[in-house]
Amino acid sequence: MPNPTAAMLVIGDEILSGRTRDANMHHLAVELTKHGIQLTEARVVSDNHDAIVAAVRELSAAYDAIFTSGGIGPTHDDITADAIADAFNAPIGIRADARALLQAHYDRQGMELNEARLRMARIPDGAALIENPVSIAPGFTIGNVHVMAGVPSIFQAMVASVIPTLTGGAPVLSQSLRIPRGEGDIAGPLGALAAAHPEVSIGSYPYIRDGAHGTNIVVRSSDPAAVDAVIIALTVLFPEAQ
Amino acid sequence: MPNPTAAMLVIGDEILSGRTRDANMHHLAVELTKHGIQLTEARVVSDNHDAIVAAVRELSAAYDAIFTSGGIGPTHDDITADAIADAFNAPIGIRADARALLQAHYDRQGMELNEARLRMARIPDGAALIENPVSIAPGFTIGNVHVMAGVPSIFQAMVASVIPTLTGGAPVLSQSLRIPRGEGDIAGPLGALAAAHPEVSIGSYPYIRDGAHGTNIVVRSSDPAAVDAVIIALTVLFPEAQ
Repeated sequence: MPNPTAAMLVIGDEILSGRTRDANMHHLAVELTKHGIQLTEARVVSDNHDAIVAAVRELSAAYDAIFTSGGIGPTHDDITADAIADAFNAPIGIRADARALLQAHYDRQGMELNEARLRMARIPDGAALIENPVSIAPGFTIGNVHVMAGVPSIFQAMVASVIPTLTGGAPVLSQSLRIPRGEGDIAGPLGALAAAHPEVSIGSYPYIRDGAHGTNIVVRSSDPAAVDAVIIALTVLFPEAQ
Repeated sequence: MPNPTAAMLVIGDEILSGRTRDANMHHLAVELTKHGIQLTEARVVSDNHDAIVAAVRELSAAYDAIFTSGGIGPTHDDITADAIADAFNAPIGIRADARALLQAHYDRQGMELNEARLRMARIPDGAALIENPVSIAPGFTIGNVHVMAGVPSIFQAMVASVIPTLTGGAPVLSQSLRIPRGEGDIAGPLGALAAAHPEVSIGSYPYIRDGAHGTNIVVRSSDPAAVDAVIIALTVLFPEAQ
């Protein structure tokens, strides 16, 4: 059985303007790979209602699980929850369980649960809350879409609580070799090896270090013996591999 | 007149598996913003012919300019050029001008222009070459799609040669303020200010530092006076802003 598939949707003008460097996509990719779920596509869209709705609908229909980051805070530019509700044609309003979490949190801190903070209790009907151990305001899951915060520490905590609830596949294992030769030098025999071993995926990643060209080869499969066998074949083919 | 729009398509299993952290999207975002072109969407797809074709067609129809990164080297997993040709229903083959560039380069180095390296001279009919000062193998532009290498140093060189050829808009200027208060504290007055100043975009980005919540506010517009006015209004509203 092929592994389950996933997509990520990063929501945020700040990524597209270059103000901020996204860190969440890489974190999610690593965590999904460990769990045997294949991150197959990622998108970044701006803080635009229609763009979010369209992307959520398209990705939700195409992949087993969708993860969004960003836009669930208390300010005017936090429009994700409403867009997700629209994508699922679900009503949205302040939900008692989310409100109770926030109320208890701000009471403990002697702070007011004001109108802006109450926006963070707006949850689409039918969604399940995702715990936020960092700053309490929850994410939520509706259908196959997991809606999470953009602040990396909170995103990571939410990923840690969602992933164990998902059905994973066989973990994909990888081994890599560094060959101190340019891709053009090794592409012929490498391509023949790849054609002879369709049971693994062989990726070739060129690098330039101190002006010299080299290649990282990555062999991936859920069958560890298949990876081992191809790595051995590579070291025979390219004795200079490290 | 609104600024021209752009999208980026990152092609590469290695980003989606978490093996590599993409660096090109951030670079492109910064360069486009300087040139007054609005990066409106970005996608990452795997090394899959059909996924690349579908994404190129969709993005090319929706935005003024598309930039791709990755998959134009000499190895078996470099499938971008053929996928782009398919997306435009253009024939593709080894082109004399690209071949001549590579031949001269490898002759100078005393290296062979072998069959694998010749793959890098496969260019769709009707495309214009993009210069590669780092390792010679060219990128290309077909229609509104600019096809570039994934190695960051080469990607950056190609961006530097393509962007000046594009019509830009008024550069979008931004100023930011750091407010040492949580978003929930400031969201009310901030939202009112944003509603009163539709001529600028006001983004609110929470952070957590040493356990304390704070907010970065970014004001953006192509009109510098409008940005200045809103920044002044913010410092009146939030005297603790830095």
